[in-house]
Amino acid sequence: MVEERGRRPGGTEAERLIVVAGSTRTAGVEGRDGPISAAGADPEAMATTPSADLELLEYGDVTRAPTVPVSPTGCPTPAVHTRAIRELVGFDVTPMDAGLERESGAPTVSLGEEPGSDIRDEEPVENARELFDTAKGFGRSLPDAELAIGETIPGGTTTAMAVLGALGERPAVSSSLPANPLALKRKVVDDALASSGLEPGDAAGTPIEAVRCVGDPVLAAVAGLIVGATDAGIEVTLAGGTQLAAAAALARHAGVEAPLRLATTSFVAEDGSAGIEALATDLDLDLQVTDPGFDGRNHPAMAAYAAGEAKEGVGMGGALWLAERDGVPMDAVRERIETVYDRLTRSKRSLSRP
Amino acid sequence: MVEERGRRPGGTEAERLIVVAGSTRTAGVEGRDGPISAAGADPEAMATTPSADLELLEYGDVTRAPTVPVSPTGCPTPAVHTRAIRELVGFDVTPMDAGLERESGAPTVSLGEEPGSDIRDEEPVENARELFDTAKGFGRSLPDAELAIGETIPGGTTTAMAVLGALGERPAVSSSLPANPLALKRKVVDDALASSGLEPGDAAGTPIEAVRCVGDPVLAAVAGLIVGATDAGIEVTLAGGTQLAAAAALARHAGVEAPLRLATTSFVAEDGSAGIEALATDLDLDLQVTDPGFDGRNHPAMAAYAAGEAKEGVGMGGALWLAERDGVPMDAVRERIETVYDRLTRSKRSLSRP
Repeated sequence: MVEERGRRPGGTEAERLIVVAGSTRTAGVEGRDGPISAAGADPEAMATTPSADLELLEYGDVTRAPTVPVSPTGCPTPAVHTRAIRELVGFDVTPMDAGLERESGAPTVSLGEEPGSDIRDEEPVENARELFDTAKGFGRSLPDAELAIGETIPGGTTTAMAVLGALGERPAVSSSLPANPLALKRKVVDDALASSGLEPGDAAGTPIEAVRCVGDPVLAAVAGLIVGATDAGIEVTLAGGTQLAAAAALARHAGVEAPLRLATTSFVAEDGSAGIEALATDLDLDLQVTDPGFDGRNHPAMAAYAAGEAKEGVGMGGALWLAERDGVPMDAVRERIETVYDRLTRSKRSLSRP
Repeated sequence: MVEERGRRPGGTEAERLIVVAGSTRTAGVEGRDGPISAAGADPEAMATTPSADLELLEYGDVTRAPTVPVSPTGCPTPAVHTRAIRELVGFDVTPMDAGLERESGAPTVSLGEEPGSDIRDEEPVENARELFDTAKGFGRSLPDAELAIGETIPGGTTTAMAVLGALGERPAVSSSLPANPLALKRKVVDDALASSGLEPGDAAGTPIEAVRCVGDPVLAAVAGLIVGATDAGIEVTLAGGTQLAAAAALARHAGVEAPLRLATTSFVAEDGSAGIEALATDLDLDLQVTDPGFDGRNHPAMAAYAAGEAKEGVGMGGALWLAERDGVPMDAVRERIETVYDRLTRSKRSLSRP
């Protein structure tokens, strides 16, 4: 028992999830039919989502953030699910700040101070090179044998689509909305490439240029982490969907040939527009899809996901994969999600509802 | 099993150790017979000790720091012991930066940027009020039911002695050296009080002034944490020796009447100059002393402690208390300490030896 618990947390023996958090003004884009992202009840709330997500992982509740992040329909952030799984598996979480709009109450490794600009600006990530290099050095410095990497950045699926396009990869795009505003995203991505004078594929082989021109700070940091960690011989699992796939694409275009695993949720895998399987094949990623079995569950933290909201984020797919690998049954995962969610509804900070 | 492991980490269910790290130029004081602190192989190494301690707790090895902190004789930092116990008990660690001289590779909650000056200066902690208030707000924001608080700041026993004096409390003082340079510390403390125009007891009831005039940034932050956490009804355990007792004194002088536990090592309890029992009685602290059973152990991470080096720090006493409370046998603790130490000697960054 002592030995078993001793494996968590435990340096080279521990499981670690690094969550890279940041902001991009791209999240504020509004289309005729609504917002480009559902990672917050409204634009103001969306600014605090990544900081609040880190607090949920660290403390099981928000501390500095005013409320627990929910979508405009009240669907809770996947940080709730990742936190629940963490309570069962006991993996370490290392939060990184790649450019948060609001400071988090969680401890963070600070990589950069600047939120990303709208990708339709000329240089949305001016410090892309610095973020990449700092994250690379950090990844190389870790003693871990293996590492999972997740993200939290509203608007990130759109910036990921733009980066994939700039690299000449399949411009797959998922969404935290049940109905993906594809037309809006395509328009934003086209304008982003145009504003930087890029045609699809023009940034092939120059990943930092791709991020600097049409990406976000989290993509720059995750790409650097992958390069540094694989340099150090660390086994890397990308915990997420198209955004982590885009970061993997950046790493491949930076010359990374090491095996990479992409662990995502069944909700992303079932999203046709994400085309995650084809993307994983293109990028030579070992795709692991985990289904938490939310179908038919009448619970606010499950029903909306089963209906296609949120889908993924804050390392949820990777956390589910770790739970499965550690033999934690999915009914225990669902039960713990209910526990964490109920704890939040009872806490001093209520979940904000529309 | 799942339920058991599910208790760690787990928001209101988890055990959490907050480690407040910082620097004070007081650590650089040299007497005729040597340095005032042994929290580093030399003054240059001492500057990185608190940052390295946080990395050891988070990753099980240093990442950004050049070497694992050791005393001038090669005695390893108590961060090794606290890390080992963490691997057995699985408690969460939340690192806080109250003013580090060198940035840590560990994630931190940042409270302040300024290292403390030499307490013989007029205002060694100019931002004492800000540190206290920010830490108070943070402590109040935590959802935890209970909390342990530790410290890492070279030179901290001397600043603690000065603060106890300013408050009119018993000026107890422990040491990381086997032979406590008492004369040197008393001289520094007398000069510190004089430089601020304070007589012993002049700062009674004005804790922030006591820290501002003769303290260090960690004492300001820990005192604020105690006030905020107890305000929120959180059960607080102070994980350490005379420095944590001095922080408790500050909290008492700030009006805290809640029960407080002081969990320290047998090495501090056996140190006459620390007078920790009398101090705990004066301040109405529930004193818990844990003996890890290092006597007669021929291991670099135990023999020197048994001989009176280091004694305490980085939450070691509190971690030992948590292990005892959780029924982790001390032989398992000693075994894990050897494992962690051996891992470090094998790691890419060797322990620095004189």
